[in-house]
Amino acid sequence: MTALSGHEEPTVRQRFQKSVKNVCSVKTVKKVVPIIGWLPQYNCTTLFQDIIAGITVGLTAIPQGIAYAVIAGLSPEYGLYSGLMGGFVYLFFGSCKTVTVGPTAIMAAMVARYVSGYSADFAVLACFLAGIVELCMGILNLGFLVDFISIPVISGFTTAAALQIASAQLKSLFGLEGPSGNLFAESVYNFIINIKTMTLWNTLLGFFTIFALMALKRLGEGCSRNDGKVKKLRWFISLGRNAIVVIIGILIAYITKMVTNEEPFKLIGDIGSGLPTPHWPPFSTVVGNETYYFADMMTVFGFRSIVIPFVAILESIAIAKAFSFGVPVDATQEMIAVGLCNIIGSFMRSMPITGSFTRTALNHASGVQTPAGGVFKGLVIILALSLLTSTFYFIPKASLAGLIITAMFSMIDFSILGRLWINSKKELLILLSTIIVCLTMGLEYGIVTGILLDALVLLFNTARPSINVNILKVGKLDLIVLPLHHHVSYCASEHIRKAVLRASQNTLIDSVIIIDATNLMSMDSTVASNLMSAVSDLEKKSFQVLMFNFNASLKKICLDINPKYADKFVSAAHVTEVMDAYGTSV
Amino acid sequence: MTALSGHEEPTVRQRFQKSVKNVCSVKTVKKVVPIIGWLPQYNCTTLFQDIIAGITVGLTAIPQGIAYAVIAGLSPEYGLYSGLMGGFVYLFFGSCKTVTVGPTAIMAAMVARYVSGYSADFAVLACFLAGIVELCMGILNLGFLVDFISIPVISGFTTAAALQIASAQLKSLFGLEGPSGNLFAESVYNFIINIKTMTLWNTLLGFFTIFALMALKRLGEGCSRNDGKVKKLRWFISLGRNAIVVIIGILIAYITKMVTNEEPFKLIGDIGSGLPTPHWPPFSTVVGNETYYFADMMTVFGFRSIVIPFVAILESIAIAKAFSFGVPVDATQEMIAVGLCNIIGSFMRSMPITGSFTRTALNHASGVQTPAGGVFKGLVIILALSLLTSTFYFIPKASLAGLIITAMFSMIDFSILGRLWINSKKELLILLSTIIVCLTMGLEYGIVTGILLDALVLLFNTARPSINVNILKVGKLDLIVLPLHHHVSYCASEHIRKAVLRASQNTLIDSVIIIDATNLMSMDSTVASNLMSAVSDLEKKSFQVLMFNFNASLKKICLDINPKYADKFVSAAHVTEVMDAYGTSV
Repeated sequence: MTALSGHEEPTVRQRFQKSVKNVCSVKTVKKVVPIIGWLPQYNCTTLFQDIIAGITVGLTAIPQGIAYAVIAGLSPEYGLYSGLMGGFVYLFFGSCKTVTVGPTAIMAAMVARYVSGYSADFAVLACFLAGIVELCMGILNLGFLVDFISIPVISGFTTAAALQIASAQLKSLFGLEGPSGNLFAESVYNFIINIKTMTLWNTLLGFFTIFALMALKRLGEGCSRNDGKVKKLRWFISLGRNAIVVIIGILIAYITKMVTNEEPFKLIGDIGSGLPTPHWPPFSTVVGNETYYFADMMTVFGFRSIVIPFVAILESIAIAKAFSFGVPVDATQEMIAVGLCNIIGSFMRSMPITGSFTRTALNHASGVQTPAGGVFKGLVIILALSLLTSTFYFIPKASLAGLIITAMFSMIDFSILGRLWINSKKELLILLSTIIVCLTMGLEYGIVTGILLDALVLLFNTARPSINVNILKVGKLDLIVLPLHHHVSYCASEHIRKAVLRASQNTLIDSVIIIDATNLMSMDSTVASNLMSAVSDLEKKSFQVLMFNFNASLKKICLDINPKYADKFVSAAHVTEVMDAYGTSV
Repeated sequence: MTALSGHEEPTVRQRFQKSVKNVCSVKTVKKVVPIIGWLPQYNCTTLFQDIIAGITVGLTAIPQGIAYAVIAGLSPEYGLYSGLMGGFVYLFFGSCKTVTVGPTAIMAAMVARYVSGYSADFAVLACFLAGIVELCMGILNLGFLVDFISIPVISGFTTAAALQIASAQLKSLFGLEGPSGNLFAESVYNFIINIKTMTLWNTLLGFFTIFALMALKRLGEGCSRNDGKVKKLRWFISLGRNAIVVIIGILIAYITKMVTNEEPFKLIGDIGSGLPTPHWPPFSTVVGNETYYFADMMTVFGFRSIVIPFVAILESIAIAKAFSFGVPVDATQEMIAVGLCNIIGSFMRSMPITGSFTRTALNHASGVQTPAGGVFKGLVIILALSLLTSTFYFIPKASLAGLIITAMFSMIDFSILGRLWINSKKELLILLSTIIVCLTMGLEYGIVTGILLDALVLLFNTARPSINVNILKVGKLDLIVLPLHHHVSYCASEHIRKAVLRASQNTLIDSVIIIDATNLMSMDSTVASNLMSAVSDLEKKSFQVLMFNFNASLKKICLDINPKYADKFVSAAHVTEVMDAYGTSV
């Protein structure tokens, strides 16, 4: 039997030397710039596969990008700008070949508040700042922070985001007048009061889009790239469904316009054409007549916008894990890569971007071989920006709304509700609290609420360890054994002290109270102090107390507090042997 | 072997019925109003002992009360007002006979900011509000919140409070001109820049007071109430040392005034005479020309003043525990009692009060028998307020400063620094952080910082459980065993998933990875989900994975996530038997 991980703790000096050595090694350079690892093996076959996958993903990235720009309240070309740089940057720094970096619905929803309240410049600055934070978190190796977001919280957050995003699209789906809203409640309220302005054609087109998407998704089920011709075609049509419904929408709108010379559908309208000129992110901006300098813009963002990079990391790491198939994901490298994608993207007027689940899945399904696929995706977007913007004019808003609402529906995980209802009401409550706060106060507050609730539940559980008091008869004596387990923390110390005192109340004076630390691995000074005060209190009440099987370091912590109880510490193979060890004094 | 606490969880209905029954029982009434329990047994002997103790404590309460009023920046009579009602109210509701409720140095230090910035009315309202919060915490049974303050944080907080209070007295000790300060740094800075205004007589008297107090403390060491005449006298003089040095100070100041007709010592000056008229706490007040209504006063207090009642509860429960000698303290009852003391006290212009360590120790040493001792303490203070205020005019500020500084010195626990340095640098760091934040930003922020740091350390420890991977040889096969222990929480799930994947990387394909839950008591849905995803990942890499000895509920949580792995769950007495259980499929 060999202990694999029975390593000793290195000293600070050794750690430092190791760090310096690590930073300078070839392995580290390969780790930080993974392209060095895979480029030498690159060949024509992989190139061909990457091109196919890149184009497929690009064709989806265009309608999705426009839709996400709409979610953020930005002009549609911003969605394309945002999909532009991700692939090029991730090519060099990305560690997971399938991950596609670009705009996502949740990122878009999180900047919508700043765009609607101020201007597009805030979304671009948010992208730059999020990138800086992500890069720093990567360099400081803070990826473990994501561990503190449990699945119920992620699920609640995602559900709430989906509901919020979908509800904001009700206006476009039904072609209503009036404003939409940044919060679920606001959007639903605006939907209800404006429902009379509903227009038939927009509504029909919107619902047609939803049904078409569902039908096309169905079409591809059970088919794959490697099937026979018919099945392969079905698979391909299903994959391209987002592009297809948007193209159908464009055609309907265009033909209607040509035939009737009217615009019964609300259209996206003019789109900025061509590539954005590379430029510093906007560190100051003018909204209306007011100039916002960097400090003012930071005040607008406030402390809560720290959630944006955090969620970006969460999304990208979750996706990388889902598509790494058992290879441990290097969270640090993912953070650095996504951080750089954002920083460089912000020079091309990108909104905050991160790993996209749908496009990553599509990338994988299309058989991508290396992150080079992202380059071809980028080229497709560049082509679209150069040639197709006049076509995009005709994209009906109802089509996009249908596209978004269908996508959001698939983001909601209904099964977890049932599972938690059966297995853990406490976790269900945390999930529901997260949803409610997300929907009523905003996504940022919701996720923070969920994280805090989880942490509080954890703290309270730690504060109340179960102590199963056992009573053993040895001759005439009663041995009252209180076993302590594993790690005991300060917040449990009063609980343990009370358990010891309570044990003494129910028993005869000539019984022995044994605090059994056989399975105790650590305790802090607060626990030790409370234990020693319990021992001292019991001594005053003339009880016999024994500290059983405390290891050397635990014993030392106790005796440093009160050295006079050294004779109370005994060790033996079994608790019934303590009487021999204790000798005749009992 | 009997499990004492192996109780089943009651249903909500049963709990509710039990609560209703509890509330109406005689036992509960006796618990809430403990005087009902002890008054029938009250007799002349206990009365006599209570009178002696009450007078002794009263004689200390007068100089201490005046000193604490000075710490708070209040006029001296407020210290006496604050000592007035505690005893009378605690008589009815107090559960611990020795605890003496009154003003304390820390409570005084915590309101000083409001008194110096605004007026005495703020201290009185703080007393009322603190009482309300304490009472509510008692009724809601929130005493367990105090468990989340570890001993290093308490120690750091107390040390910082002592330093802050002592430093604020440097001005009076040396008879300086100019302001003092609410923060340690501020007081020290003001001391240094005003040091040239030092006056000889004040300084001499101040240091004389300190040395006298130390000498008188020495005098009483090893002596007690039950010793022979000389030793008893020494004990008594030592106990009364606070009153003695103040009386000496008064005499020196008075005689100097009579002889020279000058006042070389800075004196306390005029004191409001007589008892305060009972009156509602000040829900509005005027400071300068500005009227503060209740809402304005609440804004002045701000959210951070919630720390005041919290610290009051901490102090009083800690003291009750120290003097309960093994009887578990009823924290709820203590909170109700201290809460009522504050609420009723605020009608007599009290500042926030709580259990006082020095006076409780004195009460115990003087042989108090019941909380009735507090009544006689109250009577002594009433007498002083009625007759002695003209005498108090002559109390030299330097005497009080010496008194306060000496008391503060004894509040600092130096030994904990050494103990933590040896046993736990992490806890030492938390202690030092608490001190630094207390001294630089204020006591409230310091204690909150300490609590948060403790919680963070606890969370991070929970997130990284140690997993000792064992490799067992059974025939040709390697069994790689990953044991999970005790409770595993969401934040550890990624750590465990990585450990499982890492174990698979170092081994041959034909080894079996066994996740051993023999000692696992609980896990949440996040852990289950990560485990199942690890299993699924390993399956894809053609590894054999077994889930060993998962109990029924843990197995259910896993299978609800992914039912297709039911055949992976096996149970056996020892891990080497799994091959038989697993049959021939390996």
